[in-house]
Amino acid sequence: MLSSSTTESRRQFLRQAGLTAAVATVAGPAAALPFSEPLAAMQNENQRKLGFAIVGLGKFATQQMMPAFKDCKHANITALVSGSPDKAKKLAAEYGVDPKNIYNYQNFDSIKDNPAVDVVYIVLPPSMHMEYTLRAAKAGKHVLTEKPMATSVEDCQKMIDACNKAGKKLMVAYRAQFEPFNLDAISRIKKGELGKLRQITADHGRIVKPTEEPAEAWRVVKKLAGGGSLMDIGVYSLNAARYLTGEEPTEVTAQEFSDKSDPRFKEVEDTIHFTLRFPSGVLASCTSSYSIQEVKRYRVFGDKAFLDLDPATDYYEHNMTIGTKEGDMKVSLKEGNQFAAELDHMAECVLENKTPKTPGEEGLKDIRIIMAIYEAARTGKKVKL
Amino acid sequence: MLSSSTTESRRQFLRQAGLTAAVATVAGPAAALPFSEPLAAMQNENQRKLGFAIVGLGKFATQQMMPAFKDCKHANITALVSGSPDKAKKLAAEYGVDPKNIYNYQNFDSIKDNPAVDVVYIVLPPSMHMEYTLRAAKAGKHVLTEKPMATSVEDCQKMIDACNKAGKKLMVAYRAQFEPFNLDAISRIKKGELGKLRQITADHGRIVKPTEEPAEAWRVVKKLAGGGSLMDIGVYSLNAARYLTGEEPTEVTAQEFSDKSDPRFKEVEDTIHFTLRFPSGVLASCTSSYSIQEVKRYRVFGDKAFLDLDPATDYYEHNMTIGTKEGDMKVSLKEGNQFAAELDHMAECVLENKTPKTPGEEGLKDIRIIMAIYEAARTGKKVKL
Repeated sequence: MLSSSTTESRRQFLRQAGLTAAVATVAGPAAALPFSEPLAAMQNENQRKLGFAIVGLGKFATQQMMPAFKDCKHANITALVSGSPDKAKKLAAEYGVDPKNIYNYQNFDSIKDNPAVDVVYIVLPPSMHMEYTLRAAKAGKHVLTEKPMATSVEDCQKMIDACNKAGKKLMVAYRAQFEPFNLDAISRIKKGELGKLRQITADHGRIVKPTEEPAEAWRVVKKLAGGGSLMDIGVYSLNAARYLTGEEPTEVTAQEFSDKSDPRFKEVEDTIHFTLRFPSGVLASCTSSYSIQEVKRYRVFGDKAFLDLDPATDYYEHNMTIGTKEGDMKVSLKEGNQFAAELDHMAECVLENKTPKTPGEEGLKDIRIIMAIYEAARTGKKVKL
Repeated sequence: MLSSSTTESRRQFLRQAGLTAAVATVAGPAAALPFSEPLAAMQNENQRKLGFAIVGLGKFATQQMMPAFKDCKHANITALVSGSPDKAKKLAAEYGVDPKNIYNYQNFDSIKDNPAVDVVYIVLPPSMHMEYTLRAAKAGKHVLTEKPMATSVEDCQKMIDACNKAGKKLMVAYRAQFEPFNLDAISRIKKGELGKLRQITADHGRIVKPTEEPAEAWRVVKKLAGGGSLMDIGVYSLNAARYLTGEEPTEVTAQEFSDKSDPRFKEVEDTIHFTLRFPSGVLASCTSSYSIQEVKRYRVFGDKAFLDLDPATDYYEHNMTIGTKEGDMKVSLKEGNQFAAELDHMAECVLENKTPKTPGEEGLKDIRIIMAIYEAARTGKKVKL
């Protein structure tokens, strides 16, 4: 880990690099390089890292995402925001974060004065994403937020507007869009390996255990989660259908079932099945459930072959099969750290002043469709998008 | 193979055995046995076989179903009905069928005078099932018909009524309900191995090639097939959802896509996705397509485990996996001849005067739901069942 003083001066430079092209391109001997390659203009590896403040130190943040920074080329944890000072201190020590850079939810806005922080990564329950995005943008920070982006289309729009107004990047953490097997699937589809796309099935499920695992309790509280399995994991089925087709759906039908005698589903839905229609004619049938054994899979059917990924959206150990009339073929591919790729992409977008691959608009699209799915399930009618 | 004279006298006896309890139970030394075990009353293996007339000698009949008779204990091919005399003669020689027992569609009704025929097995395009069931019942024969049972609910009802009136058995050839892996799946679900059932996904697809394979041409002609992929293969997804839950669905939503510029889909649908709701809350999302590489699979999700069968409804080589939180487990099971089991069941129902496991009423249920699926797809509205 870097010492905090080195980190601070580096951050200061890099933060400015993200602001305007001029700052980056005049910074080193390679100033004549086109702006799209400012990284090459950096003088050393250390200078290439942007500082990330992690807002919310829950299970996902601490067990999956934070450890991934060690594989990042351009991203580093430089601040922590938590309501638990002890947890924050312990993690700060573990990750070499200057204890001065620990914030709580009350003093979070003072992060604006901290040049060690370039990007605020929001890992809070979805209903809080809007507030913290607005506060981060106001503090002059770029924003990476977990999915689902927010709990309403209106909140998503506010987040987009706030970051635009502040001239800051806004990205939604769709990790699967940075995962090698998923990228390979997209590439094979684009190349026509499956022939003409016809249908997709995608299933995401897991058992939610709010009582056994208190860290999960918020997931069944509508005010915090915004909804049930659809918001939390069904969004993987939905997002996959969109990135696999490369199209936006035009219509949706849906059905929901939640056992209201189960205390977990008093406020949020358990199981919801939805079918999306895409302009090319592809139908995507997706499922989402909080009461089935873990599943994270999809299959894409073309008229020449199918592509099966099961699991498709796990952290590791993806399993791809291509099926043709000649038989099934397993695809070997090197696993990659999707979290590190995602974090580096955010950093690069800041450094190179690029629009993220999964910007706020991407998150908004999913939320808009999710709301239509809820409406279709409620009314029993196909909803046009 | 038996000589035709032996066959005829055997048939005569067995045909009568099927008519009334008395005939069967007074026929041998074991007449005191309860009627449910008349097979035990038979004096030798030969006497246990009923005579089947195969109506329609297409690819399925000649390549899959007819060869299965060699594994039957109680069923034998004794007559053929075809519009191609040459094909019929060749097959008659191959299967040891008396050439006298070859019929065409014009003289079919004279089968009533042939004691070698107990059961008429209709393997014609679905729109013809009604007519031949009525003619067979009128000829005093029991009826086994391929699925889908017919092309309208009204036709199904006519078939049921005709067989009831004639005092003949009517069974629909749902081979998957006689297939060992599917039976094992049902048994595991009933035993609670998956916990509480939550959802099912079932996908059936194949490329229909009416020009490359002329024998398939009828499948894309609405007047003959009644519909497209849903009638032909989607019915496997539907029937599976029903036999796996052991419940009848109460509501359905659906979406359809057919490329009308593709000559195959001018009259019948290509791809249709439908979601069934069952009283217990199980949602079943099913797909059916005529333009994707072959798929015949389902997965049943409980709150403790899932059961995956892929393929689920093939002729052979089924592949079962049980997935729990401890991991996935392959299930080894002996493949069985589902066709032979189905044919023997039909014969046993006649011999023992039992209602078939998949009677006309079972076929009618599927047709009624199929019509609701079409309506839901057409209107974009959930249809109550």
